Amino acid sequence: MISPHRYPARRDKLKRLIKKKRVPAVLICDETNVRYLTGFSGDSTWLLIGPDFERLISDGRYTEQLSRECPEVEVAIRPVTQTLIDATAKLISAQRISAVGFEATALSYAAVSRLKSALKKEELVPISGLVEPLREVKDADEIAEIRSAIRAAEKGFDYLRASLTPGMTEQEASYTIETGMRRFGALGASFDTIIAVGPNAALPHARPGGTFCSDSPFILVDWGAKMGSGYVSDLTRMIITGSISSKFRRMYEIVKTAQEKAIEAIAPGVEARQIDRVARRSIEQAGVGSKFNHGLGHGFGLQVHESLRMSPQADHLLKPGMVVTVEPGVYFPGWGGIRIEDDVLVTKQGREVLSSVPKELEQAILSF
Amino acid sequence: MISPHRYPARRDKLKRLIKKKRVPAVLICDETNVRYLTGFSGDSTWLLIGPDFERLISDGRYTEQLSRECPEVEVAIRPVTQTLIDATAKLISAQRISAVGFEATALSYAAVSRLKSALKKEELVPISGLVEPLREVKDADEIAEIRSAIRAAEKGFDYLRASLTPGMTEQEASYTIETGMRRFGALGASFDTIIAVGPNAALPHARPGGTFCSDSPFILVDWGAKMGSGYVSDLTRMIITGSISSKFRRMYEIVKTAQEKAIEAIAPGVEARQIDRVARRSIEQAGVGSKFNHGLGHGFGLQVHESLRMSPQADHLLKPGMVVTVEPGVYFPGWGGIRIEDDVLVTKQGREVLSSVPKELEQAILSF
Repeated sequence: MISPHRYPARRDKLKRLIKKKRVPAVLICDETNVRYLTGFSGDSTWLLIGPDFERLISDGRYTEQLSRECPEVEVAIRPVTQTLIDATAKLISAQRISAVGFEATALSYAAVSRLKSALKKEELVPISGLVEPLREVKDADEIAEIRSAIRAAEKGFDYLRASLTPGMTEQEASYTIETGMRRFGALGASFDTIIAVGPNAALPHARPGGTFCSDSPFILVDWGAKMGSGYVSDLTRMIITGSISSKFRRMYEIVKTAQEKAIEAIAPGVEARQIDRVARRSIEQAGVGSKFNHGLGHGFGLQVHESLRMSPQADHLLKPGMVVTVEPGVYFPGWGGIRIEDDVLVTKQGREVLSSVPKELEQAILSF
Repeated sequence: MISPHRYPARRDKLKRLIKKKRVPAVLICDETNVRYLTGFSGDSTWLLIGPDFERLISDGRYTEQLSRECPEVEVAIRPVTQTLIDATAKLISAQRISAVGFEATALSYAAVSRLKSALKKEELVPISGLVEPLREVKDADEIAEIRSAIRAAEKGFDYLRASLTPGMTEQEASYTIETGMRRFGALGASFDTIIAVGPNAALPHARPGGTFCSDSPFILVDWGAKMGSGYVSDLTRMIITGSISSKFRRMYEIVKTAQEKAIEAIAPGVEARQIDRVARRSIEQAGVGSKFNHGLGHGFGLQVHESLRMSPQADHLLKPGMVVTVEPGVYFPGWGGIRIEDDVLVTKQGREVLSSVPKELEQAILSF
């Protein structure tokens, strides 16, 4: 659980940023950012926040939930006859401020136009990337929530391995792992589970279909859990169900070695692109560099993909408290693909691998 | 399955609308609209369409899927080093047109700003509600897909009734109905299933929690299925598991009568608000008008809530081929709520109720 004192502290940080931006207030419309700043888990609710005030704008469906989830924030409940935009404009005018910043990536062009017309004279200032950087470094409560999302995912994977039959389709297997995660406390999957048998694993974003789990000797499983707290996990493992080729063995070790080297390189102060480079160089030196055609990993927390990226272009510096996936892979059209993914916390000393599903090739074997 | 000839016909209709709007082309960015117009079911893909040309703008992850799902549409695959916005700007410039309309509710303010800077001189014209009205009237293929989404939902409800135990929580019950729907062909739930025991049913948008199904004598179940085709269903029924009060009996009949009267009133040419009025007046005449605090229903298809609404403000005229929910309810804080919802097709002659879960009070009884 996220302690109640976390939310005011987050809003205080944001207020200091708002002061620096020299706007009197900012309108937070992104649902995940509202949740991060207030603890409110519903939708259709915006936060107007300035250095000296904060107000949630919502509707009657959420009165009870707001008083339970964020009792310390003042709430304006709009009547059914008033739109969220009109209620917001009214509240802005009542604050007697000259300008308001808004999240330019969260509001549609049409919503901004309507808000502009509803305002009398206040200027609207587009702002991007205000709350997202705050979310990159996780506090102790968030790390605990992420740990439980990883645990639910891992229990779900055990459940899938224990349930897998030769006649199960990819789609049935994806439902099975979700059932497993729910048995261990997850609300459900944190993204559409990827269960890709043999050649289907050649597509990094394969969708589970009617292929049987026994149609090829290996299965790629990319999955994660979403908890009631909103926090998620994201993992990938291979399951070997048949007789694998020497190519598979070789590729598996190439990916595993690259992943382990990259994890070892994670430390505070290191550039994210440097970690990507370690994995990429390792795969290149093994002669299959062109088969690793995506970034190495990404930050996650309340969302599966957050603003932090570990890719060749990423200019982030790693800091203690960041949580990232490390997921190199190689893909061969028509043959299949191999990816191994763990969840890693950047610590003051270096790193801690939060996930613990075994990844030695021998441990990936499952006999039907 | 939607026949391949449906998609060009839909785009032709849109092209005629574009001519009327007097813009040389329109950029379709809404994912559901792209799917409706082309059959492409992935994301991160836009459609640039004018009276004499059409082009999908996508990336390498989707090359294979695009050629399978919409072989007749020309596709521009952008390189990994180019953003979707830059690729779109380049394509617009290559068309040598003076202006482009864009879906103002689908693009963020930031995306529009970036597109503006990437364009040389072409004007960007915000347009709203271009494709959504086309989607309101369903063709024969869409109605067939909706029928299968209703069937999967109904089989899921039977599965839940057959699985329900006194010790099952709301949350477990919501997973159970999803499992049931998947057994009968659904990809999953079309929205977060509402399973609300007794007093929890007083909130129209209750979330399933830890309350046991035997904690009160009745349960509200609001659920739907989403199929691989993208089409959905949306239903509500009560399950009576204990000894109910005379108040419950009275309220149930009030809601059921209102719902049946409203369904009877559905016919082509009738205003949507008139159908809402029939149900609302019926509940008012029974003396509990203030307890029905939401609109009567909404259109659905590729989304659970589409642009057509049946509410006091709705100025739509019903037309053959429209598919709507009819879902009156009454809610008493602390006591609970009752809602009954069916899916109804507007026909040339009047209407056809597509859903068939029994709704007589006696048929809602389930003994543990």
